Amino acid sequence: MQTRRDWLRSSLGIGGLLLVPPTILSAQEKSDFQPRSLDPIIRLSSNENPYGPSNRVQERIKSSFIHGCRYPYAYSDNLAEQLAIKHGVSPESIIITAGSTEGLRITGLTFASNGGEIISGQPTFLAMMTYAEQWGASINWVPVGADKGYDLDEMEKRISPKTKLIFLCNPNNPTGTLVPAKKLVDFCDSASKKAIVFSDEAYYDFIETPNYPSMIEAVKRDDNVIVSKTFSKVYGMAGLRIGYLIAKPEIAAKIRKNVVAMSNVLAVEAAKEALQDDAFYQFSLAKNREAKKRIYKLLDHLNLKYVQSHTNFIFFHAKKDIRELGPAMLAKGVRIGRPFPPFYDWCRVSTGTLEEVDFFIKGMLEIYES
Amino acid sequence: MQTRRDWLRSSLGIGGLLLVPPTILSAQEKSDFQPRSLDPIIRLSSNENPYGPSNRVQERIKSSFIHGCRYPYAYSDNLAEQLAIKHGVSPESIIITAGSTEGLRITGLTFASNGGEIISGQPTFLAMMTYAEQWGASINWVPVGADKGYDLDEMEKRISPKTKLIFLCNPNNPTGTLVPAKKLVDFCDSASKKAIVFSDEAYYDFIETPNYPSMIEAVKRDDNVIVSKTFSKVYGMAGLRIGYLIAKPEIAAKIRKNVVAMSNVLAVEAAKEALQDDAFYQFSLAKNREAKKRIYKLLDHLNLKYVQSHTNFIFFHAKKDIRELGPAMLAKGVRIGRPFPPFYDWCRVSTGTLEEVDFFIKGMLEIYES
Repeated sequence: MQTRRDWLRSSLGIGGLLLVPPTILSAQEKSDFQPRSLDPIIRLSSNENPYGPSNRVQERIKSSFIHGCRYPYAYSDNLAEQLAIKHGVSPESIIITAGSTEGLRITGLTFASNGGEIISGQPTFLAMMTYAEQWGASINWVPVGADKGYDLDEMEKRISPKTKLIFLCNPNNPTGTLVPAKKLVDFCDSASKKAIVFSDEAYYDFIETPNYPSMIEAVKRDDNVIVSKTFSKVYGMAGLRIGYLIAKPEIAAKIRKNVVAMSNVLAVEAAKEALQDDAFYQFSLAKNREAKKRIYKLLDHLNLKYVQSHTNFIFFHAKKDIRELGPAMLAKGVRIGRPFPPFYDWCRVSTGTLEEVDFFIKGMLEIYES
Repeated sequence: MQTRRDWLRSSLGIGGLLLVPPTILSAQEKSDFQPRSLDPIIRLSSNENPYGPSNRVQERIKSSFIHGCRYPYAYSDNLAEQLAIKHGVSPESIIITAGSTEGLRITGLTFASNGGEIISGQPTFLAMMTYAEQWGASINWVPVGADKGYDLDEMEKRISPKTKLIFLCNPNNPTGTLVPAKKLVDFCDSASKKAIVFSDEAYYDFIETPNYPSMIEAVKRDDNVIVSKTFSKVYGMAGLRIGYLIAKPEIAAKIRKNVVAMSNVLAVEAAKEALQDDAFYQFSLAKNREAKKRIYKLLDHLNLKYVQSHTNFIFFHAKKDIRELGPAMLAKGVRIGRPFPPFYDWCRVSTGTLEEVDFFIKGMLEIYES
């Protein structure tokens, strides 16, 4: 029987797009970063980082098993102190949550339940809005522009006394767009005088623009700005469920009392290690850039338009309905992103390992060139 | 310098209460269950099980690292299916949460926010009531009786049209009491016709009464009953944050959409293994019984009244203010339970390892017999 690797190898060079799969990682990289073997279904659907958790993080988890019987409070407080130092804020400004999703949901619950309004771009990451709507918030949706980026002017125009939160995911999921730095700073400065601006920085590490500012700077200026961060993306720890919010202490105190879950001891210890593991961090960024380059090359070859991505996924104009392309790619063993209305003829594909990306490329070539 | 073990050994036989510490665990038990070394401060304050997580669970976590980069949905659904089989309910009846605490909080939020009432014994485990109060619930507190057990007659009497939930923690934390089986069944049957009865069964495994019914039986009869379970106690996984709710599908669906965090992949895989690890489960129960026997012997010796415990802690009449006894014991290196108003002259002490319990005993003897 032909294995999947044989099958890929036998197809080498299709359109010049599959780049020497047998040497995808160097021997050193393989030993340092333990790339995973291929899953039966390759998941390029959830913007995960398949290289994680790193070896160092895994070792840290093992040495933390002894703490697995203890409630996480003290461990979590200690991580908050480390993060406060990293970001130059007070520990009172940090709220450790079970993934940034918990942070988004409880922020929506805290400020927008019972009739508050959230202004949000569309499409975007929905965790805050979906949850807040269940608790009586109304959402004021502002469609993204022709470039798929947020329409900040329109968002600001819509601020009214009932606006409680303005949600930005920047870089944005699912579009991969980045608000120009100056525009973001000006928007936060101005809008946060009228409502709380929430900046979801889950993909911040992947930004391609040098010296792009984090909105933690606005928190430090005491603005009404909340920033969320996660260990799910560049650190490859989506399954461990740990993230955090950063806000000035008055805002943080209001959210903190609504924390439902907090994170877990193993994830908290893993996060402490991940923050120190610069080699893995740099490796993840480098591999993500390589993966995106390969996907861009495919899309250029197929003449499919795409957004220059500041994330670990690419949003492209598939020219096919995603509700058909998704199942077609799944039949080829690759799960791509779900539909993101209203862009039914666009597709979001996450970067996987380089080997996984090659399977995506092969599947796409078969579908688009058959 | 004298080590803490030397210090304990040198005090052997104080009041005949320290029982051969050097042979606290057999060599086989030591190798099978890896008892922890003593912490600088011995934690007998949070009803944790210091023997966990078990070796088998630790191995399972290690072999699950590869899934640490994946979002937990599929893993969690699979655990729910296993739990559904274990309890004889449908998977729609199971909600996996980040510890049972998340289950308690979101249940309070779901049914009692914006003016709903929760009837609760006092003292009890507060997670649901504290959270629901923040969301506008009112709590109708019913003091426990002279025996420290719930006053179910009074609780039922207080049910009114505004009652949304009746909270039982059974066995109860912090008292360790157990509602008599028939009384519980009758109460659930009758009260659940008027409001939703919530039965927190965190300590169910420790119940000393044979064949004591779980209120999952009421769920199966389609009653308005919700049961919570946790992996934090007998399984020794408090730090991993995983628990679950069981309710009929109509009730479960209402709660499920309000889940904030869900659990994490490592905890989910750990839970699957813990459910199979009967040797560790039995070991934990046996060691807990031994620890309680030692503590009872101390309390008898000191002539301090206590509640017969169906849990992994003992609630006893300290005859001293807990706000003084707590710091005094902490000075001896042992953290005991916090104050549980209105019983300021009572103390809750968790069972630790047998060695830890001996340090508790020694500290108590020094305080009470000096």
